[in-house]
Amino acid sequence: MGDLFWPGDERAGDHFTSAAFLRAMVAVEADWVGRELPVPDDVDRLAREAESGGNPVIPLVGLLREAVDDPMVHRGLTSQDVVDSALMRMARDAVADLRRSLGSVAERLAELAEAHRNTPMVARTLTQHAVPTTFGFRVAAWLTAVLDAYDDLGRLSFPEQLGGAAGTRAALVELGRDLTDDVPRWHTTRAPVTRLGDAMVGCTDACARIANDVLVLSRPEVGELAEGSGGGSSTMPGKANPTLSVLVRRAALTTPQLAATLHLAAAQQVDDRADGGWHAEWAPLRDLVRRTLVAVSQTDDLVAGLRVDADRMASTLADAGDAVLAEQRTMAELAGHDPAPTYLGDARQHVDDVVDRARRTVKEAP
Amino acid sequence: MGDLFWPGDERAGDHFTSAAFLRAMVAVEADWVGRELPVPDDVDRLAREAESGGNPVIPLVGLLREAVDDPMVHRGLTSQDVVDSALMRMARDAVADLRRSLGSVAERLAELAEAHRNTPMVARTLTQHAVPTTFGFRVAAWLTAVLDAYDDLGRLSFPEQLGGAAGTRAALVELGRDLTDDVPRWHTTRAPVTRLGDAMVGCTDACARIANDVLVLSRPEVGELAEGSGGGSSTMPGKANPTLSVLVRRAALTTPQLAATLHLAAAQQVDDRADGGWHAEWAPLRDLVRRTLVAVSQTDDLVAGLRVDADRMASTLADAGDAVLAEQRTMAELAGHDPAPTYLGDARQHVDDVVDRARRTVKEAP
Amino acid sequence: MGDLFWPGDERAGDHFTSAAFLRAMVAVEADWVGRELPVPDDVDRLAREAESGGNPVIPLVGLLREAVDDPMVHRGLTSQDVVDSALMRMARDAVADLRRSLGSVAERLAELAEAHRNTPMVARTLTQHAVPTTFGFRVAAWLTAVLDAYDDLGRLSFPEQLGGAAGTRAALVELGRDLTDDVPRWHTTRAPVTRLGDAMVGCTDACARIANDVLVLSRPEVGELAEGSGGGSSTMPGKANPTLSVLVRRAALTTPQLAATLHLAAAQQVDDRADGGWHAEWAPLRDLVRRTLVAVSQTDDLVAGLRVDADRMASTLADAGDAVLAEQRTMAELAGHDPAPTYLGDARQHVDDVVDRARRTVKEAP
Amino acid sequence: MGDLFWPGDERAGDHFTSAAFLRAMVAVEADWVGRELPVPDDVDRLAREAESGGNPVIPLVGLLREAVDDPMVHRGLTSQDVVDSALMRMARDAVADLRRSLGSVAERLAELAEAHRNTPMVARTLTQHAVPTTFGFRVAAWLTAVLDAYDDLGRLSFPEQLGGAAGTRAALVELGRDLTDDVPRWHTTRAPVTRLGDAMVGCTDACARIANDVLVLSRPEVGELAEGSGGGSSTMPGKANPTLSVLVRRAALTTPQLAATLHLAAAQQVDDRADGGWHAEWAPLRDLVRRTLVAVSQTDDLVAGLRVDADRMASTLADAGDAVLAEQRTMAELAGHDPAPTYLGDARQHVDDVVDRARRTVKEAP
Repeated sequence: MGDLFWPGDERAGDHFTSAAFLRAMVAVEADWVGRELPVPDDVDRLAREAESGGNPVIPLVGLLREAVDDPMVHRGLTSQDVVDSALMRMARDAVADLRRSLGSVAERLAELAEAHRNTPMVARTLTQHAVPTTFGFRVAAWLTAVLDAYDDLGRLSFPEQLGGAAGTRAALVELGRDLTDDVPRWHTTRAPVTRLGDAMVGCTDACARIANDVLVLSRPEVGELAEGSGGGSSTMPGKANPTLSVLVRRAALTTPQLAATLHLAAAQQVDDRADGGWHAEWAPLRDLVRRTLVAVSQTDDLVAGLRVDADRMASTLADAGDAVLAEQRTMAELAGHDPAPTYLGDARQHVDDVVDRARRTVKEAP
Repeated sequence: MGDLFWPGDERAGDHFTSAAFLRAMVAVEADWVGRELPVPDDVDRLAREAESGGNPVIPLVGLLREAVDDPMVHRGLTSQDVVDSALMRMARDAVADLRRSLGSVAERLAELAEAHRNTPMVARTLTQHAVPTTFGFRVAAWLTAVLDAYDDLGRLSFPEQLGGAAGTRAALVELGRDLTDDVPRWHTTRAPVTRLGDAMVGCTDACARIANDVLVLSRPEVGELAEGSGGGSSTMPGKANPTLSVLVRRAALTTPQLAATLHLAAAQQVDDRADGGWHAEWAPLRDLVRRTLVAVSQTDDLVAGLRVDADRMASTLADAGDAVLAEQRTMAELAGHDPAPTYLGDARQHVDDVVDRARRTVKEAP
Repeated sequence: MGDLFWPGDERAGDHFTSAAFLRAMVAVEADWVGRELPVPDDVDRLAREAESGGNPVIPLVGLLREAVDDPMVHRGLTSQDVVDSALMRMARDAVADLRRSLGSVAERLAELAEAHRNTPMVARTLTQHAVPTTFGFRVAAWLTAVLDAYDDLGRLSFPEQLGGAAGTRAALVELGRDLTDDVPRWHTTRAPVTRLGDAMVGCTDACARIANDVLVLSRPEVGELAEGSGGGSSTMPGKANPTLSVLVRRAALTTPQLAATLHLAAAQQVDDRADGGWHAEWAPLRDLVRRTLVAVSQTDDLVAGLRVDADRMASTLADAGDAVLAEQRTMAELAGHDPAPTYLGDARQHVDDVVDRARRTVKEAP
Repeated sequence: MGDLFWPGDERAGDHFTSAAFLRAMVAVEADWVGRELPVPDDVDRLAREAESGGNPVIPLVGLLREAVDDPMVHRGLTSQDVVDSALMRMARDAVADLRRSLGSVAERLAELAEAHRNTPMVARTLTQHAVPTTFGFRVAAWLTAVLDAYDDLGRLSFPEQLGGAAGTRAALVELGRDLTDDVPRWHTTRAPVTRLGDAMVGCTDACARIANDVLVLSRPEVGELAEGSGGGSSTMPGKANPTLSVLVRRAALTTPQLAATLHLAAAQQVDDRADGGWHAEWAPLRDLVRRTLVAVSQTDDLVAGLRVDADRMASTLADAGDAVLAEQRTMAELAGHDPAPTYLGDARQHVDDVVDRARRTVKEAP
């Protein structure tokens, strides 16, 4: 069902829904027992029955054994093996989509930066006019943020779990399963989860960095940017709101605390399975991944539709007048020469460098 | 649909679901226009269409006007009036249920404290045995936490919004609506939301304080408490886990960050309607309220079923031996008399005081 | 020593410094033993020796007993009694100063709102021009936020602790101390701390709400407000930055997470003294209180020096032109009359109501 | 001055103190101008004067120019170049120390895991006895957490900043400085800061994972572990508290929110220098790094002194009796053979694998 509390949620598709979670858990069980297993269709019942054992695996195993009458179903596994492996399978799929989406943002930004490599605008620091810059240089900053986030996504791994009751694989050995490989066991060491969470926040940080600029620069008094098609108002005809930017910014206000929750849960790990620290991960991780998918997709649309008013940029810079060149005069005097005709440093070279980085990064992505 | 990511979620019933949100928004619009309005049945469509304007009111108004062919629907309101009023109506209902549930916890704890007013056990500080105490005294601490949270719930208010496009009620005056009353306007000052959030966290803090003790005291090596019916294991027959406590503890690891998000959103208020700070509230508020309802309900069951092993408490205290009376000897020596037969201070009086507070508090609740 | 990491820190004076903490602890011990006690002058040594027992009371008691050769020093108390009582004494003093400072902000805002009760400006929602409003109406929103925070400060209480080793006051009774009163015991139920934290964040939320508007409205393209004396630049002569607003906004990005930490610590309470949840409170509480004192003081200066450009407000509204009156035309048509000459609803009445609230609130403050 | 609010703080030495910050800023300025510069000795004055410009560089540059009478001091730089570069220099030094300290923890844990490769104990899941395990296997989990954190430290980089007023290096070019290299510019894209923050939290997560186990297993009813020298009590003679574990656990309750603050600040980046998002980083980063240094150092001591009671582990396992072997009987029956003499799966092999990873990791560290 659509989520009225998070407009745009449908952009995350089926990633990390309860239905997807169920399918992923059944797939883990099926792979383990080496046979096809049916996906129960009563998610509500499973959800209700999940409470008594604290997780959905116990009622699921009951249904699966009932359905296929195979006593080997789930044998040697523990609930956490199934839940963690299912979470990682969902995460792997979500991150694959996310990289495609963020890669698209990067490509669009690379084009935008090149197109505006020489578009002059006034730089702003602490809200006030500073010195001249170019819009391409600004876009290069957006692109840097996106590429940093993209790099972090590429470093993630999605290990499954296979430990049995207490991680020792005792039941597996007793059952005679072959266990020659060295598989990481992270039942109580949650770096795979916290790294995933941190990387998600890196993405929303980058998207918000763009949205913030659009929100400032599309204020009517500034007017240098505009969203492709603004959102309407329920009462004011003709108003065009930068809705995508607003929604992206919204996401980034919520995700850091979700990732912090994953770390707090990691820091509560104890014994061979934690008494709450594990259970606290699932919903925040779901929300974190879905909101990141939504925010990146919205940013992709935002950048695709962005309207740049280069004339307005030029006239604002011209109006800013002498003040934005005061620094240059000081420097020229110190250097003992007349001020150079432009005061843009290596801005254009920097744009080229960042665009190059983008092209290499996205092309080399697996 | 059941939430596999948050076992126990169904305890929160229909509070703050998308369907409830929709009904509340329609009710706000109906009250305003002074006629019955139909509740659209396609939540998914509304959710999808909510993105372009950033909130679900714009498509909702479209559907409502279509359905009743009344141009006065929504006239004079703004989206935020409808969303904020609907959130507060949902909050008012949820808090009413929450107070009933938390009041039940308080009553059960008052009974438990009285029943164990004289049940000796060893106090533990920084995990180590300290001096003698009673289980009733410990329960009085739980009860204090619950009553503090209960008091905070009682202080909440749930103001609606009625401001129009920019809060000035210009359209209402233009339409000739009577506006003699002084209604608070909090479109960009979010204390009603942040106070609600803080109060929710107060509830989960209190519940976790109980759950933490149950988790320690039901460890097999301690064995002084046990949950009424423990949860099973997917692989180990006969294992009884303190599942309710685990799930309560889980909730309390996540709620502080949700309330922090509400404050961060409040601190991002700007202009006459914020560019993301407002939108960031809805989902965290939903999650915060629902998780609190679930945690308090689970705590109610936990306390109702709690099994106390007074013999084990007594024998642990006895085994702790001389060490727990070392402080008493020092004090008696300083006071120049033999140690008194018990070393419980005013523990019993304190239990009575807290129980009295509970009885007064819950009885006087409106 | 001044804090280079938090410019403005000195505004918090001696509140919650290590030296103040030490003095408060000595005062608690002195009150208890009923005699003057010297304040040790080697804070560094105490800090170093605090680690082995986990808190500074153990080495402090050693020094005090050495200094006055009185075996009754600290007798009957526990470390937590002393630390918690000292924290509450410091908090009580800090909140008294904070209320004075926030009351001053409220008074200044009340004057500003009245002065600009009729100063027209354009309202902005989601960054875009909406309908006409007045600057006084905007200031009334700022004032509402401040008064809500002020009210919450007034509800705080600062209970001390007196429980002995495990809260039962056993040693006190053994020593024959008179204990007729019912004193709250909150060693493991931390509402006094979390409520304090939440109230602090309410203050920074309110201050940031003001700062955000100043930051937007003092952008050169908007130019409707300016800080009294802007901050300079290290390289650009003549630049005037809205530094106070920047620093206030900074604070509000950090305080919600500090208050969340207090709640998380509260939710980790266990046994009769927690194994980390207690210790985690001290530094975050210190930072939270000091940053709030600084932010409110900076806001007081910010409001005192604020420069309002009413002409610019008027011309921006005029330039916004027809679009900001589109809603009015719709409403007038629906109502069947010509548009009224102004479109400000009850904005002026609302300003008066909020100013009245401010006058009552600050006057009635104890 | 010692910090009474954070016992153990002195373990972080001079890292990220105000004095160190000042020295690092002077070093950045000195490197830039290519001459020695004196470190001003009045940190308090600098701190006070830092407020008007929002950061300490402006008054610092004033003092430096006064001291050396060289107009080229700071020419071409902006405040943010100096602050960010100084933060990164401090971070680089702190992380170097941190890696040494965490490497020491890893080496000690590797030895401990090997020493107890065959020490039987009962596994515990959700607080209850599960199946047999070894203490070495448990230590391997601790070690895994530490190595994951160690790996993340190794991936950090510490780029300096050199952009001038708006990042374009305009002043540098005007001054004729050679700028052939491609230097990253991250004035408004804060991955270097957020990655550092996330890596710090990874360290405290890992340390807390160890401390939590020590806290549980050193409860007198369990008695399988003990801290080398417990902390005393201010009133109870003979009490030995697991103080190091308590203090480590404390840290991990606070660090995730500090890292979240860094992300929130990153998500507030806007323009060419942010209006608060930048300033909000400094103090949280300082606290995050110092607390991590303290926690890792305390963990190193904790592990070094840890006392293991293998007899108690064995007797608890024996007492747990038949229940912990119930799973094995089920598995053996399914497999159609008698239960094997042990039920430890590949626990010993896993210990060897993790120890190998530790040896390789720490040896290969640069």
